[in-house]
Amino acid sequence: MTRYPESLQKIILLLRKLPGVGKKTAERYAFQMISWKKEDQELFASLVAGLKKNLTICSECGAIYEGNHCFFCNTTHRDPLLLCIVSSPKDIFSLENTRLYNGLYHVMPGLISPIDGIGPEELHLEHLKNRIQKHAIREVILALDSTIEGDATSLYLKKEIESLGVFVSRLGLGMPMGSSLEYVDEGTLSRAFSSRSPL
Amino acid sequence: MTRYPESLQKIILLLRKLPGVGKKTAERYAFQMISWKKEDQELFASLVAGLKKNLTICSECGAIYEGNHCFFCNTTHRDPLLLCIVSSPKDIFSLENTRLYNGLYHVMPGLISPIDGIGPEELHLEHLKNRIQKHAIREVILALDSTIEGDATSLYLKKEIESLGVFVSRLGLGMPMGSSLEYVDEGTLSRAFSSRSPL
Repeated sequence: MTRYPESLQKIILLLRKLPGVGKKTAERYAFQMISWKKEDQELFASLVAGLKKNLTICSECGAIYEGNHCFFCNTTHRDPLLLCIVSSPKDIFSLENTRLYNGLYHVMPGLISPIDGIGPEELHLEHLKNRIQKHAIREVILALDSTIEGDATSLYLKKEIESLGVFVSRLGLGMPMGSSLEYVDEGTLSRAFSSRSPL
Repeated sequence: MTRYPESLQKIILLLRKLPGVGKKTAERYAFQMISWKKEDQELFASLVAGLKKNLTICSECGAIYEGNHCFFCNTTHRDPLLLCIVSSPKDIFSLENTRLYNGLYHVMPGLISPIDGIGPEELHLEHLKNRIQKHAIREVILALDSTIEGDATSLYLKKEIESLGVFVSRLGLGMPMGSSLEYVDEGTLSRAFSSRSPL
């Protein structure tokens, strides 16, 4: 079998670590990168090499930030009585872009998933509870994925957080905007029906 | 709007240059790269930065190679009387893996596409004709994509190459292996019917 040149093979192997990227896609990406301008290749390389240096994961909330202080932990600009729990640092940026929320965030280190060996003890609940008590949080908003793992984690967190006397809410479930009823799955439709609101 | 940290934004912009990668996918990839091990990030960066140094595009045939000499132009190991025309260096590796071909290759600098402003003059036909005559090629095999652009280029090349008195063939058209008749499009089915062979 004729192999790709070695440096190309190594790039392909690394590209396969990206989510949803298999052999064929990684090969396409690698060949595309060969055709990039030299400046783009070098800029990209220096950015990837500098990821750990330039970006910090906040030890308090788990968000990703550049510079010296976590933007999302800054309580002079943000409401310190609200806490929104997400499953990845990326989700914080999505929620920020709704402009509906200006409270604190907490990134879970994982979601409960017995198949992957992740149980409640992996959620570092003590740290979360300490934060809730330190800031005297009034409401915790669960913004986890609407998946089996996300729902299991939400239910578990609800029980634990309510035991601290804090109000817990979760994101609304229903039809996505712009969707056609024909293509909405039964589960979503049932939820949308139950959570109908006056027009 | 809350922006991603600057270094992350730049990575996302560059990742969008990959084929079929839009904003959302580039964001997913970038966040995944943040979670890579430092060694993987650094290895990947140095490989991308070294692409132009480690890999050479053969000025003769257009293939990509590592080292001092183009593997595919080496006529001591390869049949110098056959020439296979492809549209990208990547296709050479796919054809090599069939183990059915051991001749020379020629990568076209592009395919005829009036919409993209690529006409026959962009095909650098003189170089191709020189190679055909220099090696006294007996057969040229057209292995271009089965698309409008690929077919247009194949027809144009056939006319030009046959004028040199060289036999021109193209890859067979028909049902892909493992396909179900139900899902094969009409065009492919017509071609498969016309090119039926005794069992």
